[in-house]
Amino acid sequence: MAEAAKSDLFVGVDLGGTKILAGVFSPQLKLLQTAKLSTKSSRGFAAVVDRVARCVRDAVDEADMNLKQVRAIGIGAPGAIEPETGEVIFAPNLQWKDAPLKKELEKQLEIPVFVENDCNACALGVQEVELKGRTRNLLGIFLGTGIGGGLIIDGRVYRGFNGTAGELGHMVIQVGGPKCGCGNNGCFEALASRTALFREIQTRVKAGEKTILTDLLGGELDDLKSGDLRKAIRKGDKLVEKVVEGAAEYTGIAVANLINILNPEVVVLGGGVIDALEDEMMSIIVETALDYAMPGTTKGIEILASKLGDNAGITGGAVLARQRAK
Amino acid sequence: MAEAAKSDLFVGVDLGGTKILAGVFSPQLKLLQTAKLSTKSSRGFAAVVDRVARCVRDAVDEADMNLKQVRAIGIGAPGAIEPETGEVIFAPNLQWKDAPLKKELEKQLEIPVFVENDCNACALGVQEVELKGRTRNLLGIFLGTGIGGGLIIDGRVYRGFNGTAGELGHMVIQVGGPKCGCGNNGCFEALASRTALFREIQTRVKAGEKTILTDLLGGELDDLKSGDLRKAIRKGDKLVEKVVEGAAEYTGIAVANLINILNPEVVVLGGGVIDALEDEMMSIIVETALDYAMPGTTKGIEILASKLGDNAGITGGAVLARQRAK
Repeated sequence: MAEAAKSDLFVGVDLGGTKILAGVFSPQLKLLQTAKLSTKSSRGFAAVVDRVARCVRDAVDEADMNLKQVRAIGIGAPGAIEPETGEVIFAPNLQWKDAPLKKELEKQLEIPVFVENDCNACALGVQEVELKGRTRNLLGIFLGTGIGGGLIIDGRVYRGFNGTAGELGHMVIQVGGPKCGCGNNGCFEALASRTALFREIQTRVKAGEKTILTDLLGGELDDLKSGDLRKAIRKGDKLVEKVVEGAAEYTGIAVANLINILNPEVVVLGGGVIDALEDEMMSIIVETALDYAMPGTTKGIEILASKLGDNAGITGGAVLARQRAK
Repeated sequence: MAEAAKSDLFVGVDLGGTKILAGVFSPQLKLLQTAKLSTKSSRGFAAVVDRVARCVRDAVDEADMNLKQVRAIGIGAPGAIEPETGEVIFAPNLQWKDAPLKKELEKQLEIPVFVENDCNACALGVQEVELKGRTRNLLGIFLGTGIGGGLIIDGRVYRGFNGTAGELGHMVIQVGGPKCGCGNNGCFEALASRTALFREIQTRVKAGEKTILTDLLGGELDDLKSGDLRKAIRKGDKLVEKVVEGAAEYTGIAVANLINILNPEVVVLGGGVIDALEDEMMSIIVETALDYAMPGTTKGIEILASKLGDNAGITGGAVLARQRAK
């Protein structure tokens, strides 16, 4: 391991509201090993920092490496970030405000740490590793429990004035539509996130529509997962198919809006919903987006699903670490 | 005129679907004189180029200057632009495709010509002249017959991959809403442009609602202008007030969407509708936008109406000419 002796490994961390994922990457950004811990955000900032540090140590240890071989760590965190100081300005999911994540982690690990918004990190991972840097203008849209976006303009993450750019999930696309967790109505997130899909199915079941999901999971549909929707559709479940198709159409309209506004070269979709339902959703998303976008805006652009799955965040973290480590 | 003898005047041109406006500007971008001609786009590209050239000559002559004193010309045109060659890639309003505007105008006038999308030019004019460059991140939203946008990121016009970025008017904000000229339903433009306002008023009048506009203009409401709406509201016309307030709310939601997505420092609203109805609309727009935007996104940002009015386009053209003339 001559190259590792030179401290040129990178660690990417995906810090979510419920879990922490850390990945050790080679200098060429090949993923060598991962480790996972729950976040336990209710225990507060210091405890979460300890857990991130532990997760990094675990991943490095599992890879039979040691921390001295790590040149830098990149973290994607859910919220607005101050990129220079590595502070998390605010992260509602973690209940953090002005949290000095970089500083505290560097104190614990004695390795340079860089912090980025989680969706920006995912977009960076897709752009640099999955697409091998072949575009400098990319919009990432990530559909999971919520919906977020990451924007790369001229090869750099675009953060906006307060570091909050990319809150695509709260683009209203249906004034007067279903209530969103943010308090507004008709947000993209209220129409096409996992939460929205599950709520729509539960509402229809309560209204008497039939689905095989109730045979699998019981009438309350507790513990419903995106993968269950895929299984149900493949078994011919018309209710689930209709709901997922509806979400795909809303997503296509959202993609068209964003193409009209931003005209990126590549639109990448990812996140748990797309990972589980790519075959069911992507063709509808692409068709709807091309139908709704203005003539001329879509010439030569690509709309595709990321293959990075759960590893998009840690991959982006590693890209960030490599870009910024001197 | 020692300074003029050095050929350091600039001319800005606003090339619209129905009229051409040209303005002569001092080296410090003070507007000295304007001239106006109808576009007559049905006569074809060559004829329109002749008319633009004539309008420039008229403005310069009215200012008691001559063309030799003009260092460069900047034009805002309605469509996608190739900024280096100055070609208009496509402009549906003018029925142009790959039109060599820069080349043909330079042939006629023997002065360097630079071309930009009209809404981008307006945004540039606001940023550089009205706001004196105090922000480097600005989103301009222009409400007229249609709705368009111009985006300045890091002090530079952002055009996107195909030069079409900023098609804000065709952001769908109400799936299933009123039909838009583009063929989709529920576009921002179908809810808050002048066309949308007039159509909504006409529909309500046909449905039996009362407005003093019919006394002023007859039952068909031909020749309705944005200024008539302001007059009607100030005379206590409840129908018009309600329709204008509705459009202001939709605009506020659109502004919130764009703040969530782009997080600009300054959002400037302009165009004929805002020029005529600023007092009636702006407070509702700002209040709705702040209400709908996600917490944290609006901290320190400004939402304001441009004071440049009809001169935004020519001002931006002059800024473009000064920026790019060597």
